[in-house]
Amino acid sequence: MVGYAFMGAAHSQGWRTAGRVFDLPLRPRLAAVAGRDGAAVRAAAAQHGWAAAETDWRALVARDDVQLVDICTPGDSHAEIAVAALDAGKHVLCEKPLANSVAEAEAMASAAERARARGQTAMVGFNYRRVPAIAYARRLIAEGRLGTLRHLRLAYLQDWLVDPDFPLTWRLRREHAGSGALGDLGAHIVDLAQHLAGEPVTGVSALAETFVRERPLPAGDPGRRGRVTVDDAALFTGRLASGALASFEATRMAAGRKNALRLEINGERGSLAFDMERLNELSFHDHTEPPASSGFRRILVTEPDHPYLDAWWPPGHGLGYEHTFVHQARDLLLAVAGGAPAAPSFADGLQVQRVLAAVEESAEKNAVYTPVPVPA
Amino acid sequence: MVGYAFMGAAHSQGWRTAGRVFDLPLRPRLAAVAGRDGAAVRAAAAQHGWAAAETDWRALVARDDVQLVDICTPGDSHAEIAVAALDAGKHVLCEKPLANSVAEAEAMASAAERARARGQTAMVGFNYRRVPAIAYARRLIAEGRLGTLRHLRLAYLQDWLVDPDFPLTWRLRREHAGSGALGDLGAHIVDLAQHLAGEPVTGVSALAETFVRERPLPAGDPGRRGRVTVDDAALFTGRLASGALASFEATRMAAGRKNALRLEINGERGSLAFDMERLNELSFHDHTEPPASSGFRRILVTEPDHPYLDAWWPPGHGLGYEHTFVHQARDLLLAVAGGAPAAPSFADGLQVQRVLAAVEESAEKNAVYTPVPVPA
Amino acid sequence: MVGYAFMGAAHSQGWRTAGRVFDLPLRPRLAAVAGRDGAAVRAAAAQHGWAAAETDWRALVARDDVQLVDICTPGDSHAEIAVAALDAGKHVLCEKPLANSVAEAEAMASAAERARARGQTAMVGFNYRRVPAIAYARRLIAEGRLGTLRHLRLAYLQDWLVDPDFPLTWRLRREHAGSGALGDLGAHIVDLAQHLAGEPVTGVSALAETFVRERPLPAGDPGRRGRVTVDDAALFTGRLASGALASFEATRMAAGRKNALRLEINGERGSLAFDMERLNELSFHDHTEPPASSGFRRILVTEPDHPYLDAWWPPGHGLGYEHTFVHQARDLLLAVAGGAPAAPSFADGLQVQRVLAAVEESAEKNAVYTPVPVPA
Amino acid sequence: MVGYAFMGAAHSQGWRTAGRVFDLPLRPRLAAVAGRDGAAVRAAAAQHGWAAAETDWRALVARDDVQLVDICTPGDSHAEIAVAALDAGKHVLCEKPLANSVAEAEAMASAAERARARGQTAMVGFNYRRVPAIAYARRLIAEGRLGTLRHLRLAYLQDWLVDPDFPLTWRLRREHAGSGALGDLGAHIVDLAQHLAGEPVTGVSALAETFVRERPLPAGDPGRRGRVTVDDAALFTGRLASGALASFEATRMAAGRKNALRLEINGERGSLAFDMERLNELSFHDHTEPPASSGFRRILVTEPDHPYLDAWWPPGHGLGYEHTFVHQARDLLLAVAGGAPAAPSFADGLQVQRVLAAVEESAEKNAVYTPVPVPA
Repeated sequence: MVGYAFMGAAHSQGWRTAGRVFDLPLRPRLAAVAGRDGAAVRAAAAQHGWAAAETDWRALVARDDVQLVDICTPGDSHAEIAVAALDAGKHVLCEKPLANSVAEAEAMASAAERARARGQTAMVGFNYRRVPAIAYARRLIAEGRLGTLRHLRLAYLQDWLVDPDFPLTWRLRREHAGSGALGDLGAHIVDLAQHLAGEPVTGVSALAETFVRERPLPAGDPGRRGRVTVDDAALFTGRLASGALASFEATRMAAGRKNALRLEINGERGSLAFDMERLNELSFHDHTEPPASSGFRRILVTEPDHPYLDAWWPPGHGLGYEHTFVHQARDLLLAVAGGAPAAPSFADGLQVQRVLAAVEESAEKNAVYTPVPVPA
Repeated sequence: MVGYAFMGAAHSQGWRTAGRVFDLPLRPRLAAVAGRDGAAVRAAAAQHGWAAAETDWRALVARDDVQLVDICTPGDSHAEIAVAALDAGKHVLCEKPLANSVAEAEAMASAAERARARGQTAMVGFNYRRVPAIAYARRLIAEGRLGTLRHLRLAYLQDWLVDPDFPLTWRLRREHAGSGALGDLGAHIVDLAQHLAGEPVTGVSALAETFVRERPLPAGDPGRRGRVTVDDAALFTGRLASGALASFEATRMAAGRKNALRLEINGERGSLAFDMERLNELSFHDHTEPPASSGFRRILVTEPDHPYLDAWWPPGHGLGYEHTFVHQARDLLLAVAGGAPAAPSFADGLQVQRVLAAVEESAEKNAVYTPVPVPA
Repeated sequence: MVGYAFMGAAHSQGWRTAGRVFDLPLRPRLAAVAGRDGAAVRAAAAQHGWAAAETDWRALVARDDVQLVDICTPGDSHAEIAVAALDAGKHVLCEKPLANSVAEAEAMASAAERARARGQTAMVGFNYRRVPAIAYARRLIAEGRLGTLRHLRLAYLQDWLVDPDFPLTWRLRREHAGSGALGDLGAHIVDLAQHLAGEPVTGVSALAETFVRERPLPAGDPGRRGRVTVDDAALFTGRLASGALASFEATRMAAGRKNALRLEINGERGSLAFDMERLNELSFHDHTEPPASSGFRRILVTEPDHPYLDAWWPPGHGLGYEHTFVHQARDLLLAVAGGAPAAPSFADGLQVQRVLAAVEESAEKNAVYTPVPVPA
Repeated sequence: MVGYAFMGAAHSQGWRTAGRVFDLPLRPRLAAVAGRDGAAVRAAAAQHGWAAAETDWRALVARDDVQLVDICTPGDSHAEIAVAALDAGKHVLCEKPLANSVAEAEAMASAAERARARGQTAMVGFNYRRVPAIAYARRLIAEGRLGTLRHLRLAYLQDWLVDPDFPLTWRLRREHAGSGALGDLGAHIVDLAQHLAGEPVTGVSALAETFVRERPLPAGDPGRRGRVTVDDAALFTGRLASGALASFEATRMAAGRKNALRLEINGERGSLAFDMERLNELSFHDHTEPPASSGFRRILVTEPDHPYLDAWWPPGHGLGYEHTFVHQARDLLLAVAGGAPAAPSFADGLQVQRVLAAVEESAEKNAVYTPVPVPA
């Protein structure tokens, strides 16, 4: 694993737990973790249970006892590490967004394509696909329970930038993060829209805004402020291949909303709604029922025949955020063991990147509707 | 009153009840109702308690015992009736949207301006402003409880057009309704955004769609279908004068949503959320409180010091949809009695019309950001 | 109508509105209202639309232009007025609880039985039966959608006595109110339990408490306090004839709960839940559905085929508390017109009274299980 | 660890994870697991990460490399194992309910008292105390945010016995489980009531019922049914030392409720509400605020200054059921390391047992109010 901050801790919990809960053909061994600060990475290794620590990701990639490289670094290093690891014959899990540009993402998708021919697996870490309620939503849509989709309504609302004195961390600098709320939060809801609908976004119209333009530097002399070079919020509308309308909102300025990844999908035969702040619940309306007794039902997605749930607790005993990483580890290990491609693939990650690029282009060009290149 | 269908019934209930519940300087007398079908309008008069029936709205306007004309007809007749009534010295209440075009709305606003100089009152029927929870939301914002606004998120979702065999009524024909979900539902949320924020929308970017392009004719030979000439759904983003970002969605294709007029507003100091399907509740988050004990509080807007509530029932004994019309009647009568202008004025209605026109223009021009003319 | 305070205002709104909204064989005429204070009753008559005012209820009962007497006074006068009105050949609507004792209620039920033989109708004002969601709940249970009932869980929570300085009004004195939360709130939930289940409560075990034993006198010299002679809260468990277990709680000491009449009913085939603070919604779980897609559905009880709704507004346009009185007036007028008995009858009210008496007896006797006499 | 079924899996996850997430003075080593079936216990050891397997719990207690014994067996074996382990100098964690009788629980509390003098720690596994929202509720009450308590309303509703063909497992046999819903679910809510209020239940009045009296035997010849010897549901009311009224309901017959451990507490200054099906949320009403802007606020208990949360994820990234076991392991290890007593102690578990015994006695004696012996 490369990187050991928030994502590194979450991934570690995933790797440690997947084999204890699920019956898997492969049991992961936490071989080594890499980071630039030697003392810190050794402490992280001890804390999270990694057998060794490296201060250069290249050394990690070079290790014989490493078969899979899990990339948990900021977006600006994804491409280099992922391509090197794939070319070195490793399986790769890469955090989202796949990259900071379409060009990088294309290079990564090509590397993954080449590696796939050699039996390697590459996956991008859109972990929210593995929330059981969302996985179940995908199943309902795939089974046709919603019919033709008309509307997708997705928002990812957080509030940690409301405070104008929140410091200027790497997530607020374009050179590291690529974009702001767009890449951090928007990437998730673009992936979910395409995944749930089973079809690509074909065009977007966007507005973006940076409300607080200067923030205190994270350390060093007090009182100094630096320029925020990414968006605080991005709003966009779009169309999917089938003609459904979609609206997206990504912001870190929604006071009181902590991790409100919300989605609502309306089809001809039914509707679904979900909020990550209540992640064990899915709301489902079956429009084919008699109107008098119909309504959005709150499904507790904790039954044994819900996705991932047969390995966990009895009904009603809910899961949490980190379980998405346990499920991600499980699914990736199953793919690796089976020599099968994993989803979301790097190609899926690239397609998300293309949507994000179109959003940025539209936002710069007065919101004009901007097509997204879609592979044939 | 001109027209006696859904809106006519609701307005009648408002006129009958306002003076029984509120202490008013004027008590309304239900003098006459007008409609083209003589038998039907006489039955409506008897049902709803109007003393007389007319088959020509001009006759109603000409009556000496009529001081106030309440216009509940489709949008294509608003301008002609309202201008005639104002010019005849009557006070006027006109259903929303004010008109089917900016030009008509301008003529109406001019007539209202002239009439105001003569002591007449004109009001447009954006009744949702009179939901107590929304009136209270306006009070909280005006008091600064939300601070600088960052985001407005408004949606008005219904589902009565999901069924492709729903007939082609006047609301689905441009010549009568002006537009579809946009004018019917979108007008409400544009008015609420501008009213709640206390500032105008200055530009929009829009997508619109008609999912079901042909529908059965409402009567006559079975099997014949006609062309739907209005939008089923309109999505738009925009900016307010202060720089806040706003998103709007109006649709009659959201399966399972019956009357989901939802709004959420995020400011630097707090946030508000509301859903018309739970009209007695307002969610309020105070962002200045300690994080550990803060959260969206569900305020039951039924306390005596909430707007309109001192005249109604004890706390917790909720009101319904029709009470907005009782409150509208009350507010209009107070304005008439005081010789004061009423809100929302025809000028407010015109400003909504300008936003709707910009939405239509943007939707035709590839979603390009389209400014809304704002009065100095 | 006798009495014109809170209940009088609500009933007046019911009488004024029923004939405007529903198609009824009889249209009510608001003939006269009675109260002891001449000036006040005349003001109330003018406010609420009654043609005449009387200062003695006997005069009202004696009027030839009065065919129906609506009793909205405190419980200690119900028996005398109702029996006199019935014996004078009037139809009677009497507020709940029917009386302050079983003996009074028996006399009233006998008078109603005699009157029924003469074609008169008597109804007790358990208005919550006419909340559309509750009427629909009754329909679902009667249709067998819940199967054999196992649990009824009812609570009626208010908070206006939390403040220890709330004054000692008539509702806090046994001689006027009979009991406290028990008769005021508990009577409603006992009636609903028996009505919804379609079977009587056969025994109870109860605790009661008066938390604040002295309160300021409502007027007169400041600082004087009087003794509260009724319960602040009553908790009881019980069984229904079928063996279902029930729990009841009535309190005016639940801080933050304004009018939380909540019920949940679990049967072998399904469950229902309702909260009066969200009166337009009914939660329904169908236990015969596949577990993965089942859950409590939130039915908006605003469809045309829901009880009472065909006369009101389109789906999603909710009703309020006072509509229960409009529906009560409608149902009573239909019964009167048809010469049919009305529900809830005085016999139903008597049966509630027997449960309340058993609760009081159990609470005095160390909670011992106390049977309720049930008619054969 | 003794036992490796549902509770064993949950405890294992707790032991594996606590030291990875929290900074602890002791890091647990999973030495050995015991169970009667050799093959099964070896498989469980491999699955859950225990270094060794034993087929006799006595052998486990005798191991030198075991310092702490975690008892996850049915209630009928708790006393023997716990006393033996304590007498052998081990620290002990014992699943709830502490025992199947007051006598057993007294023996266990005595053994724990003796062991405590030798520096050993004993804890009973009322894991729900470690749900962050509940721990935070306890903090708010201890700080006086609710003032004097008036009402506690607790219910624990599940539905796995609604199906009359659910088999007769050990949980449905008195000789193993002691009681039914009462000990399984009721024990949790009795502990929470006493823990949250900070005072004991002093008396109860109870009803209990077994709705389905015979069930299929879990294995063996099909068609054979056996007698259910425990309660399906128990309802009881009671009083706390301060005079607050409490109601309790434990059932496994509430169709559609999966793990609905619900509590609501009303005090003079505020109220709290919680539902385990939404375990990351606490509803809090502050009754000292102005009525117009007050209401139950939904606190997402995921902030760094909420209990246990500083070690987990950013705000809004919720936890799940199993985290209670991680927190339990953490708290127990901190107590062991500090030589401090742990809560809930065996004495706390004994006090719960006394309440359960009083409930059973009351249910047998016609619901008569039955005092609970409370230690001086």
